[in-house]
Amino acid sequence: MSAAELPAARAPATMLAARFDGQRLGVAQVPVPDVEGTREARIRVTLAGICSTDREITRGYLGFVGTPGHEFVGVVEAAPSAPQWVGRRVVGDINAACGDCATCRRGYPTHCPNRTTLGIVGRNGAHAELLTLPINNLFAVPHVVADVAAVFVEPLAAAFEPLAQGLTVQVGAPAVVVGDGKLGLLQARVLQLAGADVTVVGHHERKRHVAEAWGLGFMHGDDSGLHARQVPIVAECTGSPAGLARALELCEPRGTLILKSTYAGAAHVDLTPVVVNEITLLGSRCGPFPEAIAALVAGHVAVSDLVDDEFPLRAAEAAYARAAERGVLKVLLRP
Amino acid sequence: MSAAELPAARAPATMLAARFDGQRLGVAQVPVPDVEGTREARIRVTLAGICSTDREITRGYLGFVGTPGHEFVGVVEAAPSAPQWVGRRVVGDINAACGDCATCRRGYPTHCPNRTTLGIVGRNGAHAELLTLPINNLFAVPHVVADVAAVFVEPLAAAFEPLAQGLTVQVGAPAVVVGDGKLGLLQARVLQLAGADVTVVGHHERKRHVAEAWGLGFMHGDDSGLHARQVPIVAECTGSPAGLARALELCEPRGTLILKSTYAGAAHVDLTPVVVNEITLLGSRCGPFPEAIAALVAGHVAVSDLVDDEFPLRAAEAAYARAAERGVLKVLLRP
Repeated sequence: MSAAELPAARAPATMLAARFDGQRLGVAQVPVPDVEGTREARIRVTLAGICSTDREITRGYLGFVGTPGHEFVGVVEAAPSAPQWVGRRVVGDINAACGDCATCRRGYPTHCPNRTTLGIVGRNGAHAELLTLPINNLFAVPHVVADVAAVFVEPLAAAFEPLAQGLTVQVGAPAVVVGDGKLGLLQARVLQLAGADVTVVGHHERKRHVAEAWGLGFMHGDDSGLHARQVPIVAECTGSPAGLARALELCEPRGTLILKSTYAGAAHVDLTPVVVNEITLLGSRCGPFPEAIAALVAGHVAVSDLVDDEFPLRAAEAAYARAAERGVLKVLLRP
Repeated sequence: MSAAELPAARAPATMLAARFDGQRLGVAQVPVPDVEGTREARIRVTLAGICSTDREITRGYLGFVGTPGHEFVGVVEAAPSAPQWVGRRVVGDINAACGDCATCRRGYPTHCPNRTTLGIVGRNGAHAELLTLPINNLFAVPHVVADVAAVFVEPLAAAFEPLAQGLTVQVGAPAVVVGDGKLGLLQARVLQLAGADVTVVGHHERKRHVAEAWGLGFMHGDDSGLHARQVPIVAECTGSPAGLARALELCEPRGTLILKSTYAGAAHVDLTPVVVNEITLLGSRCGPFPEAIAALVAGHVAVSDLVDDEFPLRAAEAAYARAAERGVLKVLLRP
């Protein structure tokens, strides 16, 4: 047997991945992750999305170093502990919990203090040819859901999270989403599915078109058509102190303000209206994948309307730059 | 009939009242308020309390000018629209609502946008010989509740408000109250009555004694005995950004943080933990009087333990100064 005939597996296996070194984002050949002897699966990424959190990470948020990215759809390539998963098309919950601590035992694995989070904390992410996640995190994607829709399961699940946290929506009740980004539009659509009469407060014509196509109301941020303290459910999806102040102003006494955006650093916020108007501020993060998958199977959320561009993985830098442009919604990466 | 025999009612009737003119607090003779032709009662104040909000008001908070004070017990002296109240010993809800607007109709009169608030917004308060409130705001005080206890109905009602807002307390679950002031101690006792195992985080030996007498745990603010993210119910009762940061640190994922204190002005607050740990921030203000009265009738809250001093109304300035001293709990004013 000549050297040329050596099995490929014996050669040092590498793959292409976006890498953030703490200073800048680039792409590199890195070793293929090994899952032998673990309860994890190695997944070949078909399509990945760029989220605002990814862009924050490449500005130093959370001190993450490695491969970013947590929105993906892919195919299981190896799963030693559960070979029945090999070949399946999957999405995956991004929080890998220990399953053993008090937080996991009381049913909140996404809050496990020992967790790693795909492309965010202690685990390389989805902007690569391959990624790994625990078998327990995987969800099979039904055939009727195309890759371009499946790649939205993670952010759509986040928009379902307030309902999973017990938010009740009166049918026909007004709701306002402050912020017309990807998360804002998905949150608005989910609140509408729950029965609310939803208006998005935003700035961009591109996003107004999506909102209107989805049957949502849309108002420009400076529009005087919204009155203070009259909206029972408000969702803050801008991540800016100004957006939060606007959301607090709109929320009616005893209303609920959903906080969906993380704020990089401390914000100068006047919380007096929260107390005086007895507002419930509902912090909300990652959500339930089954609800998101079911909504996509039913065709309830036309997520592909949010796609603005697609780049090959090797052009990750250009893709991140494109995602940072004003008014751009989803940019996809294809390995 | 000589001039000396003219009925007293014909003479210009005046009363003693504390007055804040926007700059400083003083006492003055002012006209007795008239309730003829209204649905209000005139109440002769027996005993009044000084609240932190009163002290903030005399530093310019809310731009209030007039007679401060909203904690009181008194006897109805005139009630033209409901004479059966005359002679009754009463306490009173401090928010005078219109009863007619959308907020009142949906059952939240304490949030009525047209409301006046005793000694706080648009209505002279309780640090006077006489005050007026709508008949609808009055609650008769049972005989078993002494004046020195009845004067605490208003702040004790505020401590019951989180329960009225739907907060559920698991029996035996840990709860922490950050802040060992009057409101903090009352909040701690009410959470304990609801079944929680409550620890007060504070600084003062005087307050530690009250907490321990009430069966509450007490920890010094810097104590390392409390671990981050392990408490399901935390109440912030300091009104300081540092207290809020501490409360956020202690609150467990998916826990509830009760915001009881107003913050004069904007606070520099990092809300990221609210989102990441999916905390529910429950803004909470004025509460239900019946629950507070019932707790005092049952002897469940030894409120008189909180009294540090009593001054005659004419010495209101000295009383406010005493109330501002570090570590002092309740200071009472007797007209």
